[in-house]
Amino acid sequence: MLDLPDRASVYEVGPRDGLQNEPSPVPTATKVDLIQRLAATGLPYVEASSFVHPRWIPQLGDAEDVFAQIERRDGVRYAALVPNMRGLDRAQEAGLKDVAVFISASETHNQRNLNRSIEESLENIRQIMEALQGTGAWVRGYVSMVFGCPYEGHIPLENVRHVAAELLKLGVDQISLGDTVGHGTPRSVNERTRDLATDLPVEQLALHFHDTRGTALANVVAGLDAGVRIFDGSIGGLGGCPYAPGASGNVATEDLVQMLHGMGIDTGVNLEALVDVALFVEGRLRKRLPGRYLRAARGLYEG
Amino acid sequence: MLDLPDRASVYEVGPRDGLQNEPSPVPTATKVDLIQRLAATGLPYVEASSFVHPRWIPQLGDAEDVFAQIERRDGVRYAALVPNMRGLDRAQEAGLKDVAVFISASETHNQRNLNRSIEESLENIRQIMEALQGTGAWVRGYVSMVFGCPYEGHIPLENVRHVAAELLKLGVDQISLGDTVGHGTPRSVNERTRDLATDLPVEQLALHFHDTRGTALANVVAGLDAGVRIFDGSIGGLGGCPYAPGASGNVATEDLVQMLHGMGIDTGVNLEALVDVALFVEGRLRKRLPGRYLRAARGLYEG
Repeated sequence: MLDLPDRASVYEVGPRDGLQNEPSPVPTATKVDLIQRLAATGLPYVEASSFVHPRWIPQLGDAEDVFAQIERRDGVRYAALVPNMRGLDRAQEAGLKDVAVFISASETHNQRNLNRSIEESLENIRQIMEALQGTGAWVRGYVSMVFGCPYEGHIPLENVRHVAAELLKLGVDQISLGDTVGHGTPRSVNERTRDLATDLPVEQLALHFHDTRGTALANVVAGLDAGVRIFDGSIGGLGGCPYAPGASGNVATEDLVQMLHGMGIDTGVNLEALVDVALFVEGRLRKRLPGRYLRAARGLYEG
Repeated sequence: MLDLPDRASVYEVGPRDGLQNEPSPVPTATKVDLIQRLAATGLPYVEASSFVHPRWIPQLGDAEDVFAQIERRDGVRYAALVPNMRGLDRAQEAGLKDVAVFISASETHNQRNLNRSIEESLENIRQIMEALQGTGAWVRGYVSMVFGCPYEGHIPLENVRHVAAELLKLGVDQISLGDTVGHGTPRSVNERTRDLATDLPVEQLALHFHDTRGTALANVVAGLDAGVRIFDGSIGGLGGCPYAPGASGNVATEDLVQMLHGMGIDTGVNLEALVDVALFVEGRLRKRLPGRYLRAARGLYEG
């Protein structure tokens, strides 16, 4: 029998993980509008932008402007990725309290994506956490390639455990375990997550699935059964990873919320409002997004 | 912990359940080619056509020609839907041994789809089974709307159990439980299937999911955990139900096989060959099919 909870949380990463992969930059005003609409649906967390150098991700080069313009709602965390001390400085100048840091469980991916070793990344995150001491910041740590890597293939579970445990030791509040290119299967997600949860606090673990092979929601079920209660989504299924060949978008937030609600798992999110936001994104980007439920909900199936 | 097997079977319904929903008829030669390609991948069952009156499903009006032209492989069942005695006569004249019958767990859907009550449908199937006695036929029984109905909403589990148990009593060899419009959630699939399996033989049960809300593969995981070992797929995700508003295609066979293999569950199907067939279908129908894995496998993601 599946082991299912009554409640789970959905974390929205679309404005960052989604929009960083859009071929052309989205106007700042549209981003601000999107972030506010997302926050209004009841999502507890909206990852709004990234303070990675604009040379690397020009799509999010307006992070300061975005944070200057959003009107914050109580009860919603608005965070951004910070890659290093320079990014943290920019984030703090922009008035951010909560941030997200990132690292890979794959040495090769970490080198290619971040141009440093995993140990150097941990040292970098240690500096960030030190600088954040006493600020009341809440920090999310992304660990990518948890279920496999396009460069290295199999990633030993002990590497994942090491990186996640080090982040928690450094004071990171929540670890998002990323199936960055969709290698995870319901079996590997269930087994790996259960195994990690034997010595890491499961309430601090989130799962971040990409839908490369269409198994993201199946992986969510496997993650629920393993005790995880926090799942990342990207509105409409926006996204991917520009440094991870073959990666497609994140699981669509509205598909995730729809499935959870259908299973009697409350998320506190207004699904109808979320579908409206997905349709808003489609309209602004002038393209069809991969999310499934928004088509079913609106009767938009083609022929 | 998920309860997962080492082996499962995948039944292909695309040439029937998929092609019956194509707006324009596919040439007979293409159908024959498709069926033969599917059978060559190692699938144990290919539902090749339907002997429903061509007035209702003109797309499959060439069933006789299809069966006259396919070259049969050992170890593969080539079946067709038969709605009534007239359809059975046509099927038998076309040399068919194995057939599929169908009925709904929803009285309203049965009335609208088949123009008779559930009890009349059972009587009709009784006649078909009687006519098949001594012929060595293997019979599949579809029960639709098992997890909900667009007309009636909730379908009491006892209605499903009654219909499925009656079919088995009549000698039907396998029951395919259909989530015809994608109402099923991993929780309801897990709970309903476990419950049905307490008094119906689980080895005679299959699950048939549509991917309306993107949860078909998640439902497969829930079905595996409930003990089911047979799942229906439609190549490329072709299909839907013309009499069920909002229904989208079946889960794509190659997505299903990919997930099962990724979980270490053998199907006996050659996944590479299956992806080739899906691409063949896209080429012949000149449209993009909803299957996910064929894009990932071939690096065909768009920008």
